[in-house]
Amino acid sequence: MHRLPFDEVHTQLTAILRAHGFAPERATLCARLFAETTRDGVYSHGVSRFPRFIATIRNGNVDPAAEPRVVSRFAAMERWDGQRGPGNLNAHAAMTRALALSREHGIGCVTLGNTNHWLRGGTYGWQAADGGAIAFCFTNTMPNLPPWGGLDPVIGNNPLVIAVPRSKGHVVLDMAMSQFSYGGIEGYRHRGEMLPVDGGFDTAGRLTRDPAAIEASGRFLPIGYWKGSGLAILLDLVAATLALGNATHQIISEPVRETGLSQVFVAIQPAAVGEPGRPEQIADSIVESIHRCRPAQPGHPVRYPGENTVRIREENTRLGLPIDPTLWQEILGLG
Amino acid sequence: MHRLPFDEVHTQLTAILRAHGFAPERATLCARLFAETTRDGVYSHGVSRFPRFIATIRNGNVDPAAEPRVVSRFAAMERWDGQRGPGNLNAHAAMTRALALSREHGIGCVTLGNTNHWLRGGTYGWQAADGGAIAFCFTNTMPNLPPWGGLDPVIGNNPLVIAVPRSKGHVVLDMAMSQFSYGGIEGYRHRGEMLPVDGGFDTAGRLTRDPAAIEASGRFLPIGYWKGSGLAILLDLVAATLALGNATHQIISEPVRETGLSQVFVAIQPAAVGEPGRPEQIADSIVESIHRCRPAQPGHPVRYPGENTVRIREENTRLGLPIDPTLWQEILGLG
Repeated sequence: MHRLPFDEVHTQLTAILRAHGFAPERATLCARLFAETTRDGVYSHGVSRFPRFIATIRNGNVDPAAEPRVVSRFAAMERWDGQRGPGNLNAHAAMTRALALSREHGIGCVTLGNTNHWLRGGTYGWQAADGGAIAFCFTNTMPNLPPWGGLDPVIGNNPLVIAVPRSKGHVVLDMAMSQFSYGGIEGYRHRGEMLPVDGGFDTAGRLTRDPAAIEASGRFLPIGYWKGSGLAILLDLVAATLALGNATHQIISEPVRETGLSQVFVAIQPAAVGEPGRPEQIADSIVESIHRCRPAQPGHPVRYPGENTVRIREENTRLGLPIDPTLWQEILGLG
Repeated sequence: MHRLPFDEVHTQLTAILRAHGFAPERATLCARLFAETTRDGVYSHGVSRFPRFIATIRNGNVDPAAEPRVVSRFAAMERWDGQRGPGNLNAHAAMTRALALSREHGIGCVTLGNTNHWLRGGTYGWQAADGGAIAFCFTNTMPNLPPWGGLDPVIGNNPLVIAVPRSKGHVVLDMAMSQFSYGGIEGYRHRGEMLPVDGGFDTAGRLTRDPAAIEASGRFLPIGYWKGSGLAILLDLVAATLALGNATHQIISEPVRETGLSQVFVAIQPAAVGEPGRPEQIADSIVESIHRCRPAQPGHPVRYPGENTVRIREENTRLGLPIDPTLWQEILGLG
């Protein structure tokens, strides 16, 4: 795999964003979030998504100049309008504000309507944990997943992020509601492999590990069957009702035209519960208990969510970001 | 099935609790929560759990006279000590306080340490929704579930509850992290049936639908495999660190001795986002979009979480609570 220094990637993406109407500081931050996502090993939502992101600017879906604005305030809660600006900048601003509210009220909540795809959800979990806070955030998406017991994709593959800060390494869960991502299933099909566990239904309504059969039916499987389906419904309900924004069923189901999403950002200050240092000791003890678990496969210790990220981040920072040369040429051509 | 009027069940349970040291109002509320759980069709956590609940009072695990007390306050957040009182009364008090905080701050959070099993988690979701609030709550449990990639049950089957109020019927998700409950798997074995989907591993480490094989290995499956395992870890981390209470790995793994749990209750006022009535319209539109989905099995419409509850509640209120006569005799003998 071709590797490029982080700074080179960041500089190039920044220049392309500047050429597409981003103000200097916003171009720098937006480019950094893309580069950091690839640096952290979430390749599906980093630099490889950049051409599609530019396409959504060119087709008018994303307004590079639009900044989020507060619409209503009530003590620890604020509702914001994303004004169809860049989804990662809007989400970053919303979490920044939720953190400020949590420092004032112990817990703070910002809801964000009328925004765009936030790219990697984990970004805002790491952001909160770097700020010393526990965080929950989630977004709805275009309709792309059938609910349990249904044939039509009327619910969203709504990601949920939960983060807990630790100086020895934050714990950050970033999970969507489908058992496998669409890109993941496509990858299995390209490699001619079956999924390791059932990932959806075939056109005859049978559970299957065959990626092509799932793509043919469009019936991707929610995690935990009926449970993940229910969780996806609740995340959409909470996000849309508190953002007073679109619900999944109102969002255009086409990747480059998906817009007007609803999101929720909650930050909590561990210090607000009164014994500084104790929350982190407890978190460390939980991590240790997980590391003591006997692995099912010898040599493959049990890991906590986010544990691999730190290792991959270090490696990609040292060696450079792994980026497909064809993709990189395509990106340079966007300038 | 034998059926008993709600009031008769409530009166009898109240009398037994009075005889076990509960103050009058606390006996009435505790008994009501048990009876309502059975009324709502959650038979595994209602009246059938009452004998075990009495056993935990008799063995000193649950102190019927202990009331929860606030330990620290910071604006919209409070930390409470459950003082090992009855888990359902403690949780009910915590959600009551979270609701009050949310009316003052838009969002309110109560964390509760040193408490006991909350019985049916959905109780506190319905409670919040009846109070007009959106709610999130979760608890940790004794260690009873192996993490993904591990052999030992070092994580908890930590339930997560999310509720959204609607005058046409609240949407309430109440889900634990294992694909099937332990009681559920036992039921399949008793009936000589296989599970409808994989529910765990056999002793050779293969995924299986055979309930006896899963009970033999103790390797119950988290929902969504690695995803539910990660979610269970995060819920424990957030609950224990914010309650400054026990983490799952510190809790005795035996049903009648499980105690010292950590819980989180978050309530949010939809009115805090500024347009009264709009949140509910949006919620209704989401429910309608789910009802429009073509069912996978004709005649079995797609339902939202909690939809069945209203129907079962009405039926059990009208016809009486279905209670096994042997169980009822056992309960009457506890007085």
